[in-house]
Amino acid sequence: MFAIAITLLALDLRVPHVEHVTAGSLAHAVLHEWPAYFAFVLSFATILIMWINHHARMAWVQRVDGLLIFSNGLVLLMIAALAFPTALVGEYLTGPGGTTAVATYALFVLGTSAAWNVFMVALQPERGLLRPGVSLAAVSATRRRVRLGLVFYAITAGLALVNAYLGLGLLVAMWCFWGRTAYRALNTSARIPDPFYDDPGES
Amino acid sequence: MFAIAITLLALDLRVPHVEHVTAGSLAHAVLHEWPAYFAFVLSFATILIMWINHHARMAWVQRVDGLLIFSNGLVLLMIAALAFPTALVGEYLTGPGGTTAVATYALFVLGTSAAWNVFMVALQPERGLLRPGVSLAAVSATRRRVRLGLVFYAITAGLALVNAYLGLGLLVAMWCFWGRTAYRALNTSARIPDPFYDDPGES
Amino acid sequence: MFAIAITLLALDLRVPHVEHVTAGSLAHAVLHEWPAYFAFVLSFATILIMWINHHARMAWVQRVDGLLIFSNGLVLLMIAALAFPTALVGEYLTGPGGTTAVATYALFVLGTSAAWNVFMVALQPERGLLRPGVSLAAVSATRRRVRLGLVFYAITAGLALVNAYLGLGLLVAMWCFWGRTAYRALNTSARIPDPFYDDPGES
Amino acid sequence: MFAIAITLLALDLRVPHVEHVTAGSLAHAVLHEWPAYFAFVLSFATILIMWINHHARMAWVQRVDGLLIFSNGLVLLMIAALAFPTALVGEYLTGPGGTTAVATYALFVLGTSAAWNVFMVALQPERGLLRPGVSLAAVSATRRRVRLGLVFYAITAGLALVNAYLGLGLLVAMWCFWGRTAYRALNTSARIPDPFYDDPGES
Repeated sequence: MFAIAITLLALDLRVPHVEHVTAGSLAHAVLHEWPAYFAFVLSFATILIMWINHHARMAWVQRVDGLLIFSNGLVLLMIAALAFPTALVGEYLTGPGGTTAVATYALFVLGTSAAWNVFMVALQPERGLLRPGVSLAAVSATRRRVRLGLVFYAITAGLALVNAYLGLGLLVAMWCFWGRTAYRALNTSARIPDPFYDDPGES
Repeated sequence: MFAIAITLLALDLRVPHVEHVTAGSLAHAVLHEWPAYFAFVLSFATILIMWINHHARMAWVQRVDGLLIFSNGLVLLMIAALAFPTALVGEYLTGPGGTTAVATYALFVLGTSAAWNVFMVALQPERGLLRPGVSLAAVSATRRRVRLGLVFYAITAGLALVNAYLGLGLLVAMWCFWGRTAYRALNTSARIPDPFYDDPGES
Repeated sequence: MFAIAITLLALDLRVPHVEHVTAGSLAHAVLHEWPAYFAFVLSFATILIMWINHHARMAWVQRVDGLLIFSNGLVLLMIAALAFPTALVGEYLTGPGGTTAVATYALFVLGTSAAWNVFMVALQPERGLLRPGVSLAAVSATRRRVRLGLVFYAITAGLALVNAYLGLGLLVAMWCFWGRTAYRALNTSARIPDPFYDDPGES
Repeated sequence: MFAIAITLLALDLRVPHVEHVTAGSLAHAVLHEWPAYFAFVLSFATILIMWINHHARMAWVQRVDGLLIFSNGLVLLMIAALAFPTALVGEYLTGPGGTTAVATYALFVLGTSAAWNVFMVALQPERGLLRPGVSLAAVSATRRRVRLGLVFYAITAGLALVNAYLGLGLLVAMWCFWGRTAYRALNTSARIPDPFYDDPGES
């Protein structure tokens, strides 16, 4: 599902409609769509990092229950829905609606963050879903980071109303933070099961 | 296929076109699309619950035949098609076409329910496709619930013609009912094979 | 890929735009889209049956080579492209463009049929890709049916230019024929590996 | 993800809007869309060949790290984005914007090529991710080809600005070259794990 959501983002890269087509006017129109490319890359990176983290979280689990499955469904719902604010930012960033567009984007990311928090509640050690060997320190550290995200994205949504580019900068900064965390986790683990590497086609 | 159908629903969350863009008018236009968000969440939850139930049903099967495969294809067809009435409700709910939109939605869910009924006919114990250990009481209970759904959705389609919000309320109520059933089944089974948990990437 | 192509067909079920929305006018507009529903069901069934047959063919193979992979890619290309003539029939069937729309649809199916013929050439027993136990009679029977399809769809494309509904009737008839073949194959085999049943999530 | 990106390309085959519909005018409009069909086939073949090569590359890997996962994500991002210049070429090839459209397409392929180069850096033998038996000569040959691609696509983007069809011809030529390489690799290897053959549904 992450694979589908991440690929569907490309549908928001729309071909521009140009009145008087020349090589120059079309080039101008293509370049003029830069907010759409930027929003595409931002959301692609966001979903990619969540995909990697989701995979690492799922490797902790040995048993599922209703709360885990439904909170997981909530995460997937928010990730599927991210295509909407992505298109909104792509279309309205540079105009007077930029603050609304970025604030909406931040609110959707806030909703995703809330879903992750419910997901981490489902993974609380005392609920008994974790594998025996899982480090409880790693679980708490993840819960703290996920809770921090909730606060951060709420603030970002507010600041985006003041200035669209400030909001966007905070979102990119947070993405760098999560990306670095995921990158390090991949490097320190000898072998993380991974959706890109473990092709289901390989026996 | 459930994963794809559920993600494609997000394509109906369209960016609003605003004449005179200001931060306020865009915010208003985004909020004005709430029926589309509502329909998205409703259909997402519907397909998610069907996905969980489909998975649990398939765990009963040890052999497939033509009727099972074709009734399964019918279920998948109706689930793929659900994006259409979802978009219809998203666009027409609040206007004078609301009753038609919700009734159409209920008719599509009725069709899905009919497909599930054929599917449960294919799973009748005397047809010999079930695994040896499967509880026949659970199979009959599921058949009864699925038959009940057929009656319920037919009534809902009729009542939606009287009042769109009444129809929508009945659909949400039914979703809560199915959701609770799936939630309980997940909690009582020690370990249900599950599409979210069993990532094909994990060996 | 079959799963994706089959689900994407639903994107051609578009929400109608109604000038003066009333419960009646919207209902009329929704019913007026019946050619789109019909084309959706026809293409869904076509791809579903090809999916089942493709799966059965792949069960014959023990080794792949360049020709098999590329002819397989050609089959996938034509199946992905089927969404285009499906939308064409959905939009133009009932008007004066109906003959062109159905003939185009038949030409795309003809192309798919040609791709299947190349695929069956790759599977010729003397090329050594088949598993030891595969019945050579079944392989020749399949090759004959696939060659027959090529002739049949060429004739259908021609007759569709004379009458759109005649062309559509022939396509439906051929779909019934392929469907019956697939249905019987599923019933006579004790256990066919199947994409719907064998969920990758089940170990 | 390759499967999704390759299938989504079909969404750019749009149904033409005809003013005065007759069998002839619709046929003319359908034929008039040939640049869209051409761009669809070109991008389909491009992604198909990358898919085969990606699979062969991944068969070399025994361990993943951050750089491999992130460079892999970059490849996937560029492949998902390829739908955009495909649609651009489909819409503007034959008019005065043709040079801009093909040059944009070549720039996106150049970006894909750059992503592949980072990917091959991650696979450098001294980084220790390769399986023991992998031929170092094959790894260097692939790196050279991938570096060659970078130069080739930069030149193609430049020449496309001079003449759209020259640019397109160079892209097709490069696709034939990569295709032949992939075809040969499939024929010389006794058994390459393959996404089309190894259906996850087969145990």
